[in-house]
Amino acid sequence: MTVSKPNVLVIGTGGVGAIVAYELSLVEKCTVSIVVRRDYSTVSASGYNIHSCAHGDVAGWKPDRIYASVEEARKESYDFVVVSTKNLPDITKVEDLIEPVVTEGKTTVVLMQNGFDIGRPVIQKYPENCCISGVSHIGSHNTNGVITQTQKNKCLVSYFPNDSLPIDTQIAQAKELVELLSHPKNDIIYFESAKWYRYRKLVYNATLNTVAALTRVDTGRLLLSGGLEAISIPAMKEVLKVAKADGIDLPEDVVNLVVHSDDGDWFKPSMLVDVEKGNPIELEVILGNLLTVAKELNVETPVLSLLYELLKVVQYSLKEKAGLIKIPNVRPANEKTFK
Amino acid sequence: MTVSKPNVLVIGTGGVGAIVAYELSLVEKCTVSIVVRRDYSTVSASGYNIHSCAHGDVAGWKPDRIYASVEEARKESYDFVVVSTKNLPDITKVEDLIEPVVTEGKTTVVLMQNGFDIGRPVIQKYPENCCISGVSHIGSHNTNGVITQTQKNKCLVSYFPNDSLPIDTQIAQAKELVELLSHPKNDIIYFESAKWYRYRKLVYNATLNTVAALTRVDTGRLLLSGGLEAISIPAMKEVLKVAKADGIDLPEDVVNLVVHSDDGDWFKPSMLVDVEKGNPIELEVILGNLLTVAKELNVETPVLSLLYELLKVVQYSLKEKAGLIKIPNVRPANEKTFK
Repeated sequence: MTVSKPNVLVIGTGGVGAIVAYELSLVEKCTVSIVVRRDYSTVSASGYNIHSCAHGDVAGWKPDRIYASVEEARKESYDFVVVSTKNLPDITKVEDLIEPVVTEGKTTVVLMQNGFDIGRPVIQKYPENCCISGVSHIGSHNTNGVITQTQKNKCLVSYFPNDSLPIDTQIAQAKELVELLSHPKNDIIYFESAKWYRYRKLVYNATLNTVAALTRVDTGRLLLSGGLEAISIPAMKEVLKVAKADGIDLPEDVVNLVVHSDDGDWFKPSMLVDVEKGNPIELEVILGNLLTVAKELNVETPVLSLLYELLKVVQYSLKEKAGLIKIPNVRPANEKTFK
Repeated sequence: MTVSKPNVLVIGTGGVGAIVAYELSLVEKCTVSIVVRRDYSTVSASGYNIHSCAHGDVAGWKPDRIYASVEEARKESYDFVVVSTKNLPDITKVEDLIEPVVTEGKTTVVLMQNGFDIGRPVIQKYPENCCISGVSHIGSHNTNGVITQTQKNKCLVSYFPNDSLPIDTQIAQAKELVELLSHPKNDIIYFESAKWYRYRKLVYNATLNTVAALTRVDTGRLLLSGGLEAISIPAMKEVLKVAKADGIDLPEDVVNLVVHSDDGDWFKPSMLVDVEKGNPIELEVILGNLLTVAKELNVETPVLSLLYELLKVVQYSLKEKAGLIKIPNVRPANEKTFK
């Protein structure tokens, strides 16, 4: 008797997605399809060239199938759809992006993406499907189909609780993903609470990442200039307050741990790198979703809220640079009375 | 009997200072010396070339005397010292800069500069001298000794109240300056309250100028992106609250007037222009001094305070760019425990 392997689709093959697809394929417990947009012609012709600290040099690797779009990928039915695109719901909503490849009651959606409470819109739209959280700590980037991995894939896998489904099913799906992806050269760990872990990440991302992006300094200069203590640490305390109201107790020393996490480096967090490159920032999933929860829980967040409003202006201008917003040459008249 | 003319020194001959010096000299009621730093060799050799909407083209204009530094200018004794440098007390304190040319009990100090409550440190250091406020509305810039004036010099002259001196003396000094500078081609107006006028200017400068500098968008895009209503208008209300506590009632419709003041233009305020050019910003005199007064009056300013802390980080990085702060290549170790 042959049991057919699970069918997995990876959407978003930047540095993270390409290594995840490659490792899924190395483990050989599933078939692997990928959606490649920008690099489709290169990758479909000659595959990926991978230079990896974990896997050495790999020339011309291809997964089982390569699609140019999610729409094309709907030819198959998937057990897992792994999303590792940048998470920009104000531009593209993940729950809409994956619609062609989600089979109701079958496909488990894996969000291997940045951000907080990102399972909510997926579960709302697909209440019969499991939604899995993957938080990947990996150093890897994709330059025109050439993947350079500088840090082993350490990934924490949890489920985003879906009240319509039995918990056991959700745990089983998370653990199945761990099995499909686990390889001696990576570190794939089942972790009980997606919420805990994503709050823990926010202590950095909502406070140091955001302030660095806004002031355009690395986290070392943020410390030296006094901004860390005047802005980021008060912001961290607001994150902890929201977490506590949400039933999550983070460790007492988390502020100190987070502040010291870049010690020794003039480190530029991801949002700052995006701003410098003129790319839209993951503002909604890092701050927007947190502020939604804070509001639901009646927790005041004056610092985080103002950072959010300021970064929304920055995001507006990044979208304009990316051609997503068009501004007329002549400033439109405005008759409104402001009070 | 000949009465000697008052002796006036102008320090800071950018676009504003050069036109002020030129107009003082045109009126011929005083002798005019200037301190020129960057352009000294050009200006002392061949004078200023002025292209002016008010005065036409003027070739090779020189005042009575030209000095390369304030130290050099101490050879004379002055009735008025007009300061029209950029106002950056975190880099150079005006009260220290002018020390060589202020004669106790004689020299009237005229601050023709941006900012709020800027008379305070001057009066503290020179309690026997009058301190005059000049708020200049002029379009004028200096490019290597060539002055281009695009908008007539409209200047509001008041005194910064000095409790050690009779009010009448202070009013008389302000009015004397008006007389020395008034010319058919400018508009020099005595205005009673320096404080009122400088609060009025803050409604724009502390809120639109600062937020534009931080988010790096012009005031038109600030409106379109929602930042005006989410950030700048709440900040304006804080300015009005401080003003009220300080005894200054601004007009009811001031918010609306200020918001509409750039109508029709994608206008970049001065702080944004400075940030884009990599020049230090006038943060301390625009926000720092206001927050000092707010604290003295026990007025809460959460929005303005956070904007100030964020812009302090930006200022730190602008000072680094200008070579005023040196950062080591290797990030220094930090043993502190953050809580």
